[in-house]
Amino acid sequence: MQQFSTITDMRAWSRTQQREGAVIGFVPTMGALHDGHLSLIRQAKESATRVVVSIYVNPTQFDNPEDLANYPKTLEADLALLAKEGVDAVFLPTNEVMYPDGYATFIEIVGPLTDKLCAVARPGHFRGVATVVTKLFGAVLPDIAVFGEKDFQQVLIISKMVNDLNLPVDIQVGRTVREPDGLAMSSRNRRLSKESREKALGLPRGLELANKAYMDGERNAMDLIEKVANELLVHEGVELDYCDVIRLSGFAEVTQAVPGCVLAAAVFVDGVRLIDHIHLGAEHIGVEIDEE
Amino acid sequence: MQQFSTITDMRAWSRTQQREGAVIGFVPTMGALHDGHLSLIRQAKESATRVVVSIYVNPTQFDNPEDLANYPKTLEADLALLAKEGVDAVFLPTNEVMYPDGYATFIEIVGPLTDKLCAVARPGHFRGVATVVTKLFGAVLPDIAVFGEKDFQQVLIISKMVNDLNLPVDIQVGRTVREPDGLAMSSRNRRLSKESREKALGLPRGLELANKAYMDGERNAMDLIEKVANELLVHEGVELDYCDVIRLSGFAEVTQAVPGCVLAAAVFVDGVRLIDHIHLGAEHIGVEIDEE
Repeated sequence: MQQFSTITDMRAWSRTQQREGAVIGFVPTMGALHDGHLSLIRQAKESATRVVVSIYVNPTQFDNPEDLANYPKTLEADLALLAKEGVDAVFLPTNEVMYPDGYATFIEIVGPLTDKLCAVARPGHFRGVATVVTKLFGAVLPDIAVFGEKDFQQVLIISKMVNDLNLPVDIQVGRTVREPDGLAMSSRNRRLSKESREKALGLPRGLELANKAYMDGERNAMDLIEKVANELLVHEGVELDYCDVIRLSGFAEVTQAVPGCVLAAAVFVDGVRLIDHIHLGAEHIGVEIDEE
Repeated sequence: MQQFSTITDMRAWSRTQQREGAVIGFVPTMGALHDGHLSLIRQAKESATRVVVSIYVNPTQFDNPEDLANYPKTLEADLALLAKEGVDAVFLPTNEVMYPDGYATFIEIVGPLTDKLCAVARPGHFRGVATVVTKLFGAVLPDIAVFGEKDFQQVLIISKMVNDLNLPVDIQVGRTVREPDGLAMSSRNRRLSKESREKALGLPRGLELANKAYMDGERNAMDLIEKVANELLVHEGVELDYCDVIRLSGFAEVTQAVPGCVLAAAVFVDGVRLIDHIHLGAEHIGVEIDEE
């Protein structure tokens, strides 16, 4: 497995591969890899002949310095996982490579995709994401890039950006992978104590209950949101950052759920921020619900 | 000469060329072509094996709707010129192709490059330029792109953006081409009446006089600027938009000229906006000055 830390080296490798006819699949990550990442890598392998993974904790997408400082770092374990997975190259840039002194260029997405949910909760977050993804694309020169559906607003924003800017990359979306207990896999889950983890399970369980209510005919957004809140706010140390019903077409907040809506929530559990969502009316997300 | 109007067709052509080993040189233009453009095309030919020219009057870089409406359009003559010049492909996108409904992504460059000169005089101009250049790069997939030095702030901004975003394009700069009377070639020159044109010649003449004063030891920026103003403001219908001495290192406005400075000016001549500049201490820009 090749390792590169400069843009010149990374790009030279990709260009050589492409000249030899390779199709490059790319999975950008911030490390602290879990099965969710591995499933994206396997998906990339299905359509690409070479797979590149980047590990870079991008400072410009963190609105909170403490969150950045506490973001889990497990580089050696990550590299072992990637080697075992048969990844061809890893891109490990430093902050100096990505944002040298005098760095000045940012990508802004305006409109409905960036005026709600995580965009409001984390000011500047998606500007940082859009910018670093474009930079990583310029270094890796992928034909295909795979992003996880758990961060569904991010996926929509990146797809929009790629389409708007004509970036020559095919964006694919990988399904959310869950722990056996239903918690969506996330690098941040490592920061949960056993007790916090129990509280966190209210998030997928609440989404599942809300979806069940939707399937049973409930359309009032506030009532659906309450299903989630009820599962979470019974615990000390749990704060709902947002919980909204969003119609995907137009990315609009709605008060009455209609087909094609997502119920999305972000929650702080003992200071750890977790996000999850469910497509209302979709099959369940794999959480066992105890019938009352 | 191939003509393309969609991103898919343009990109497919470029990819085919590159697979066959071609190096693609690109000259983005807004049409109304003149010898300045042709010299950029010839320069592209020196390092590339295929040359693509785009003609697109980009609405997002015009701060003034009247300026956009009046921008000269000479498509048939342009195509004839390009064919004669041996250009391989022309990209002619429509506004619908470039900015479809719901378009939302823009590239912002912050810092000293975008807080003075044309950036202040034309709010949003460089955001529009940066965005459209990135989009054109994504459609044309050039290895090399050539920009004219006349728009020196634009050249610096595009180079900065390409470097910051790791766009895989080699930026080259082509020298300013001048009319025999010294006026820098510009598509906007077509909008000057014979009388306006006479007034406009005060711009290169003033820059030349200021440079002569610099060579003779003058360092005071205000005095250098006055040389330009004196040549222009003697005429009715002439307005100085800006005139500044800029140290290229750090792109800072200075009150005392030092080596590595540019004297840059923008002027409205009977409503037509023209820009020009001179590297102080460089050899003259080719304007005959009547000695007083």
